[in-house]
Parts: sequence; structure tokens; C-alpha cells
Amino acid sequence: MSESNWGRWGPDDERGTLNLLAPEAVRAAVACVREGRTLSLSLPIRGATSSPAPATVPHLRGRPLPQHFMSVDAGDYAAGARPIGAGLRMADDAIVVTPHGTTTHMDALCHMWAGDELYNGHPAGRVRSYGATRCGIDKAGPVVGRGVLFDVPRLRGVRHLAAGDRVPAADLAACGAEIRSGDIAVVRTGWPLTWEDSPEAYWAGQPGLSAGAGRWLADRDVAMVACDNAAIGGLNERQLADEDLGDDLHLILLWRHGIHLAEMLWLEDLAATGRTEFLFVAAPLVIEGGTASPINPLAIL
Amino acid sequence: MSESNWGRWGPDDERGTLNLLAPEAVRAAVACVREGRTLSLSLPIRGATSSPAPATVPHLRGRPLPQHFMSVDAGDYAAGARPIGAGLRMADDAIVVTPHGTTTHMDALCHMWAGDELYNGHPAGRVRSYGATRCGIDKAGPVVGRGVLFDVPRLRGVRHLAAGDRVPAADLAACGAEIRSGDIAVVRTGWPLTWEDSPEAYWAGQPGLSAGAGRWLADRDVAMVACDNAAIGGLNERQLADEDLGDDLHLILLWRHGIHLAEMLWLEDLAATGRTEFLFVAAPLVIEGGTASPINPLAIL
Amino acid sequence: MSESNWGRWGPDDERGTLNLLAPEAVRAAVACVREGRTLSLSLPIRGATSSPAPATVPHLRGRPLPQHFMSVDAGDYAAGARPIGAGLRMADDAIVVTPHGTTTHMDALCHMWAGDELYNGHPAGRVRSYGATRCGIDKAGPVVGRGVLFDVPRLRGVRHLAAGDRVPAADLAACGAEIRSGDIAVVRTGWPLTWEDSPEAYWAGQPGLSAGAGRWLADRDVAMVACDNAAIGGLNERQLADEDLGDDLHLILLWRHGIHLAEMLWLEDLAATGRTEFLFVAAPLVIEGGTASPINPLAIL
Amino acid sequence: MSESNWGRWGPDDERGTLNLLAPEAVRAAVACVREGRTLSLSLPIRGATSSPAPATVPHLRGRPLPQHFMSVDAGDYAAGARPIGAGLRMADDAIVVTPHGTTTHMDALCHMWAGDELYNGHPAGRVRSYGATRCGIDKAGPVVGRGVLFDVPRLRGVRHLAAGDRVPAADLAACGAEIRSGDIAVVRTGWPLTWEDSPEAYWAGQPGLSAGAGRWLADRDVAMVACDNAAIGGLNERQLADEDLGDDLHLILLWRHGIHLAEMLWLEDLAATGRTEFLFVAAPLVIEGGTASPINPLAIL
Repeated sequence: MSESNWGRWGPDDERGTLNLLAPEAVRAAVACVREGRTLSLSLPIRGATSSPAPATVPHLRGRPLPQHFMSVDAGDYAAGARPIGAGLRMADDAIVVTPHGTTTHMDALCHMWAGDELYNGHPAGRVRSYGATRCGIDKAGPVVGRGVLFDVPRLRGVRHLAAGDRVPAADLAACGAEIRSGDIAVVRTGWPLTWEDSPEAYWAGQPGLSAGAGRWLADRDVAMVACDNAAIGGLNERQLADEDLGDDLHLILLWRHGIHLAEMLWLEDLAATGRTEFLFVAAPLVIEGGTASPINPLAIL
Repeated sequence: MSESNWGRWGPDDERGTLNLLAPEAVRAAVACVREGRTLSLSLPIRGATSSPAPATVPHLRGRPLPQHFMSVDAGDYAAGARPIGAGLRMADDAIVVTPHGTTTHMDALCHMWAGDELYNGHPAGRVRSYGATRCGIDKAGPVVGRGVLFDVPRLRGVRHLAAGDRVPAADLAACGAEIRSGDIAVVRTGWPLTWEDSPEAYWAGQPGLSAGAGRWLADRDVAMVACDNAAIGGLNERQLADEDLGDDLHLILLWRHGIHLAEMLWLEDLAATGRTEFLFVAAPLVIEGGTASPINPLAIL
Repeated sequence: MSESNWGRWGPDDERGTLNLLAPEAVRAAVACVREGRTLSLSLPIRGATSSPAPATVPHLRGRPLPQHFMSVDAGDYAAGARPIGAGLRMADDAIVVTPHGTTTHMDALCHMWAGDELYNGHPAGRVRSYGATRCGIDKAGPVVGRGVLFDVPRLRGVRHLAAGDRVPAADLAACGAEIRSGDIAVVRTGWPLTWEDSPEAYWAGQPGLSAGAGRWLADRDVAMVACDNAAIGGLNERQLADEDLGDDLHLILLWRHGIHLAEMLWLEDLAATGRTEFLFVAAPLVIEGGTASPINPLAIL
Repeated sequence: MSESNWGRWGPDDERGTLNLLAPEAVRAAVACVREGRTLSLSLPIRGATSSPAPATVPHLRGRPLPQHFMSVDAGDYAAGARPIGAGLRMADDAIVVTPHGTTTHMDALCHMWAGDELYNGHPAGRVRSYGATRCGIDKAGPVVGRGVLFDVPRLRGVRHLAAGDRVPAADLAACGAEIRSGDIAVVRTGWPLTWEDSPEAYWAGQPGLSAGAGRWLADRDVAMVACDNAAIGGLNERQLADEDLGDDLHLILLWRHGIHLAEMLWLEDLAATGRTEFLFVAAPLVIEGGTASPINPLAIL
């Protein structure tokens, strides 16, 4: 049995939403709304396959990029297709998405583990070709809570962190924000800004939380950690995490504590507001057995 | 130029979010939260392709159903695959989704039109194979507003409406809820309940709003209309809308008034609460040029 | 170790083509060409997703049908897209295919097994999420050999067999064709003709070879068995095979004898020629680790 | 009307196979078989998405690479899934392929054009989102003919051509092979060998036929031209063809003469045999409205 903060059901229990944020926490979160201004914290999904567009969005090297296809569009009518009925014209489409490493997404608790058990003792063998019958993203439930921004580059007076940076707990504390049980820790590294330099600059590695920072957040009983990097913890130049099993950020947060993770957020617009407390909403698609969902997380200020 | 309520930019203007809900409306919407309880209004996405699962979710006959593939899962490790590094195990996946008619989704303003112009005079020719450069779902912006439930079956004392029902404006008015500019009208028909009888029962047609009801909502300047049916308006037994161009619900709401639409919601849990006013949140994926996005809309009570 | 006819490599051997048809057999097969006329034995792949087209091709109920998307087409130019360079216009596309049960295809030897070993003792654990590293369709190699048509409906004087028909070995013998080691047995049931009546007629079950007929062909050391039904053996009304493990056609042919299988061929044009001996060619795509490949098999008369 | 060699039907004619190779040509082609040895001329399709495999096959930079997913595999059984019936275990899969620029494929005649007409006057407007109703790969028909290898690097005594090489007609003539009407010209540049150096080396450009060589082959009335490069003609370092409309290889061969094209073949094994005349077979999948099909072309020696 893991050091579960958020497990509302044990290894023999298959029902319901895992992370049921307490009503009082939701009400308190909603009270964070001051201006009534909504910001999307998402990267765009660019899937036009016969153009360079997909490669213009930050992504981990080698991952299969999104594909977006129009199955009917205005070109069909321009080329002579007849409208529907008395003159109705429509556009229809399809997308192919592999969320990890390619777009803003939320991990399910089944995404990573060690040994034979997922988070909270659920048998790993329940994660098979047809999906994860335990700890899938469909069990995660919507996330509505108090978001707290840890703007680490701002703390350090830099535009973005360096690839080798591993953010210590002391930096999170120094950001000065009060963090409470049930909050969503939103951590900015600024790393997506390097994509503008070149993909190679982005792929040189990734800054991220240190194991100590991960434990610091787990100790404060956050419901979720959301970062603008690709893996919460850092990555080396081979796009791998360096930590051993005891210090791996996914294992600390997701596996031992049942804390959901979201990666590849876009936090530049939020950081520019100077606001560090807001209503945070993430509504993962209810993909049965999914290991993740693309999301468009919101900060409502 | 259409009778645009919500057009913040005209045909020559490519920038920004189209439906920018006013900050005061968002603050007022947030004030609807009383309990702090969050309900998902989404159908599940069941995409396991080597099982009957995809066909167990309500959908329009003949539409390509979601596909969900695990590119790494626990079975690999059970069959002998080596963990990563010192023992990390992961699961990874991909989804293929054609939102219209297959799952809970939000339409972009480019989804339907007549003639050569989209909503608000934008040239239809901008909707091509690589996506819609005008009025795509990426321009829609997140929706955060006051949700108002119109529970028509409850009004009529039935479990769900009949396939041939076209809900008149008088029924919406009789639901008694106050509806204001910027609100999200959430209309329940109960039609997804027929899926439990059989797919054929579901495919017999679909109840929906009448043209008059559509105009009634447009006159009240709603930001969005969200229904649990597949097409807002009704469908006949061939799954087609019967109205002429002047009365088609998509053309009235989406095309003439720039009112976003969401279809195939699951409203049974919300209806059971008896609540008719709540904070409504829909965060479509930022699919550049998309005609729609699957969504997991939320009612926060 | 299975009763392998065609296994050219054993359980520890990972290299090369599995079914290497002997050069003299290929030369003899080529000598079957008399007219110089080529027939395709394939069903069409209809993947236009915003039309009923995909559902108009015979397929097993519930299988995910092919999807075909144009990522650039003439409609784009009609709607104003600029040509490439001085005036070049192009069309580009993508397909999504799940071969089993949806289109004319060839099974890999890894497609079915019992216990923990694939054909010829190869460990089943080598078939994982990233594909089959043993017995994948990439190991099958192209098939070029003497094709022999067993036109069972013609033998019985009927248009097509009945759903419950299980073709006995005696019927194959009665077709009168000489069958030799290395040949490709092409067996016609005529079942695709029922699709013209209705999908429901097609889904009522499927005629197929009996276990005895399977053994009869294995005894004659054929290289491959190709049928116009969906599963070589028959299927009941739930689209399942009825035989026990000893009599299952896939286990007899694929698993015990390493005889490749192809299903869902279109044999009506070939049957109409009256020819029963021809050059047969099937060139599966070299999908590493694939369990099957869509194919366009040829009969060269 | 184009200078069509192979057009068996005109702009108002929608039926049948376009390139109907004459029976006598097929019989003569079959007579090329001497040894009875079959070589695949195809690159592998590597689609395992959670590994670097897809990127290990030569492809044009930026193209969407193949994806291969196992929807059931042995890992499921190792992890506890129950077999079917009395013990049947199966593996099932799906592929996503965008043929142009990513794998060995055959172009349809609708793939490229200039102005408003496809090959032979067919209206370009017939190529829409649902596919090409004229000149699609489904109309191409199987290719069975006399293959003639033009091994240009061998002629020049080099391992492979240089990126800037444009092969003149004189080189084709100097290869010494007799080329006749209906033949398939198989031209080797050796360019795939540069992939072993690095992807960047491969992407530096591509050698190809000159316009003069294209015309030389058209004058000799070949049925098809198949190369191991990505675009028949050469490409510059931006992966674009440099020729003007009059000299573009696709326009000369595909558009003006209705000569089918196949690209990205693997010709190293064939070149090593020293054989220059053989039976060539290409059986494109019957993708209705397709602009191309992945193929596994065969040389039967």
C-alpha cells in the first residue's frame, strides 16, 4: 500500500472517481476568482499533416505528433460538391493524438509505477492492451481547485531555467505562496521558450523539480502538480530522467502519493499577470482506460 | 455580416478569441457555486478496438467510433520487457477521435454554414484540408459561465422526450429559469437513455429544439447551447435534420448568431440534483483549425 | 515444436523469411500463366469517414472500419490555396486500417496460438505492444506460387454456401484439382455475395472449412490457404468459431503447420473465368511486428 | 488532353483499370523468370510509437511517420487476460500510414497536376476530401510486367549518387538494357544508403532523374517508373523539386503520360544480384480515392 494521500479506494475497489476534491476546497478555490478573466494554459494542437505545422509546437524528440484531418471542408464545395438538403454546408474532422510528450496533458495514475503494483496497491496487470481498468484517466475525475503558481524563473530573475536545473524545495518555499491541502501546484520553468530558439535547444534536456521539491509538495498534500516542462522532474540530453527509483518525480508524486500530474502547460501568459492564486480547472477527457488525456487547463483569475 | 451577437472580430480579422465572455459575467457565474460539488457532463470515450466497447456508447449510426491503443502496457512487462533504468515501468497510449456524432463535443463556428461565408462574413474558403484558418475551435476560447438547465422531460413528466419532439420556446420558458445574456443554456431531452433499450431505439431519430426555441435562446443572447442530443435540433429516422435553411438550428445559432454549440452531453446526473443554475465550464482542446473538440464539460454546483 | 511444414527457422532463430517457397516451385507456378491476364482478388478499401462508404464493404460486425483522409486535395486549390512553386498541385492522404475482419488481408503466424508458444515453439511473450518480434508479417515474405481454386459453390451448384456449411475434405477432393506441396489453396464460399442482401445476412454466421478439410490441406503441404470468408473456418451467429482447440482452423493451419492464411478475398471474378490453376501472388506490407497486412492478392491467368 | 500513352479512358469515362497492361506483355514478362527467386523491393514499416523505431527508416523530414498499435497481444494473457473459448489466444493490430515520403509506395495518377485538370483531362475538382473519384489508386490496377533495372551508381562506379545528381538520359541508355513498351523502369540511385550515415545526410537533398531522362522513358512508352529515391526527380536541400512546370518529373510522367510512379524502393538486394531483367509485380491496395498506396513491390528473378 503506497503512502497514499488521495486514494479514496483500495486495490480491490474499482468504482468511482479517485481524486474527489472536498467540496469545501472547491468553494474556497472558487473564491479565488477576482477579475473574472480566464486564461488557457494549453499549447496548441497543430495536426495538419501535409505541412510543417506539427513540428512547430514544443514536443519531445521522436514522439508521434498529432494528426488532424478534415473529412469534409469548404474546398469540397468549391470543387463542386453539393450541399446537404437545401443548402447546408458542413466541415467535419478527426484527430490522432498520443498525449505524452507531444501536447498539454494530464497523466493518469496508471501511467507509471515500479514492481507489480500501481498506485495504492492496484495490480499493474490490470493495465493491458484494451486500456487500464484501474487508475485510468477516466477515474481521475475533473480537477477544480485552488491553483498556486510557483514562478521559479521570476524568483531567480531569469527568462527561463537551464536544462540542468533541478528546482529545490527551498525555491518553492521562497516563491512565498501559501500552499494548502488540495491545492494544485503550478510550477513554471519557462522551458517552452527555448523552442523559439530551436528544437535542438529544447531537446538539450529539461529543467524540473528535484526529488526534494516533489516531497515538499507531497508533504503539503497537494492534489495535483502541473508544470510547463515535459516530465515534472528534469530530463537529461537523452530525454531520460536521471533519478533512481526512490527519487523519480513520477514515482514520488503519482505512484506513492496518488497526486495527479499535468505536463507541457503554457504558463507565460499566466506568469505575466503576476497573479499567483487562482481557480484552476482541468477536465480530462473520460477516456476509459487511458494513461493520459490531452487537456486545456484553465486559470480563472 | 450575420446577426452576430458574439462576433468580436469581423471577416478581415483573424485574431484572438471569438467568444470572450465578459469578466463580470464570469464573476457572476462563479457566484453560482454553492455546494462545491463538480459533475462531469460527459459520455465516456470507449476506444478498445478489439472489443465491443466502442459500440456501447451512444453515437450516430455509421460514424467512425473512437479508437484507443496502448503503445506500452503492463502486459509487456509481464511478458518479459525490461523496465526503464532501475525499474521504472510506464504505460503510453494514443487515441483517434472523430468528435461529431460520436462523443461529447463542442462545435466550432466553422462547422456549418450556407453559401460562401461562415459566421460573421468570414470566407468559407478559409476552411480547407489543413483545417479552418477562420472560426476554428482554437478561436473559440474556454467557456466559463452561468449554466442554466432546461429539463424538458421533467417539465413534461416523462423519462425522456420522443424522437419526433421538437421543443417549442414555450417549454423553455415554462422551465422557469431566468436566462441572461452570456449564459450557457443546457437543454435536456433525456434521449441518451434510449441507448439502454437498444441502438436501434436511439437511431429512430432524435428529439431537439424547434427553430422557435433556437430563436428564443438567440434573442436572450446566450453564449452557448449545450444539449444531450446529437444535433441540438431534432433528427429524423435517417439521422438528418428536416428544417429548411431558415429554421435549421445550427444555422440559426452557430451561423447567424455565433453561439457555440455542444452536443451529446450526459445530463442525467445533473438533472437528478434538481439544480438548475450552476457554474458551467467547457475547455475545448486548442486544435488549430478544428471543426470541433471532444470535451468533458463540467457543472460546478 | 509444432508439426511444422514450412518452418525454416526454429524458436531460437530470429532471422529472415519464414516461408521461403522453393525456387523450383516458383518457376513451376510461373508456368501456369497462359493468357497473361491479371485479376485482383481484393475487396476495396473504402475509408471516407463522413459518408456511409466504409459500411458498404463486407466486414465483421463491430470491427473498426478503415479511415481514409485527404490532407491536401483539389478542393484546397478551388478554395484559394496557392500551388507549389510555379504551379504544381498535389493531393496527399493517410489511411488507418485494422486488417482483421475488415478487408482482404494476410495473417501473420503470430496472429493465433494456444498456451505460451507461437508456431514452431517461438515464445508467445515476444508478441507485445510494440509488435511481434517473432512470426510477424514482416517475416512472412512475399508469396509467389501456384494457386489452385476450390470453387465449392460451383461444385454444389449453388450461388454461395450457407452460413452453417463446414466444407468437408471430400468436397475439396471432389473439386478435382491437383494440389501439390507449396501450392496456395484458394477456397471459394461465395459468402461475400450475401452482403448485397444486407449486412445482417452477412453477419448471420460464415461458412468455412471443416477441421478435416484443414488437415487435408495441411497433409498436402500447401504454403497458404486463402478464402473469401472472414476466418477460414466457419463462424456462428455470434461471429465466433465453434471448434475446440484441436479442430480450430487457425490452430491447425497457422499454429501447428506454419501455413499462412489470407481472408476476405473477392473470388467472384476469378470463379467466373472457370480457371482453377494460375500464378498466385500476395505481397504483404513489411509491417515489422504486424499480426497481419492488408493485401491485394493477384491471380495471373 | 494530355500526351497520354496509357489513358484507356477519357475525361468523361469513370470505369475500370487505367493501365491495362497488354496480355502479351504480361506473358513476355513472366518469361523473364529464370531462377524462381523472389526479392522484396520494400523498406520496412516500423510503427512502434513508444520507441525510436519509426525514425530509423529513411523518410522525408517532417512527414508523419507510420504508427502501429497492437490492440491485443501476448502481454495481455501474461497479465491475466482469459483466452477465447477453450484456450485460443490472438493478437490484433492497426496501422496508420501516410504513404508519400514515408515508405515504399505507388503514386496514383491523381497525386499531382497543374491547372484544373488531372492526367488525361479528368477534372481536378473530382479530388476531394472523401478521395479522388477519378485517377485514384483504386483505378491503377495491379502492375505485372517486365522490370528493367537501371543501376546508375554501378554505371558510374560509385556506392550511391550525390544529392545534386540529376541523371541524364544518356546514363539510362548507357546502362545498356533494352527497354520496351509496357516495361517498368526500375532506377537505382543508392540514396537510401546515406540514411546509415545519418538522417541529416539523407535530408541534404536527393538525386533523381533529369527531365530529359523522364522524357526518354516516356518516349519508350514505359508503364511505370520505380525509384529508390523519394520523388523520382531530384530534391534540393529544402526537400523541394527545382524544375519548372515543363520539366517536373511528376508532371512529365504522371500527368502528361499517365505513367505510374513508385518511390522509396529498396534496391540494394536486387542490385547485388547483377540481374537487370525480371518479372516485376506491384499490387497497390485498392484504396478508393487514394492518392497512393504503400506497396511491397517484387522482383521475381
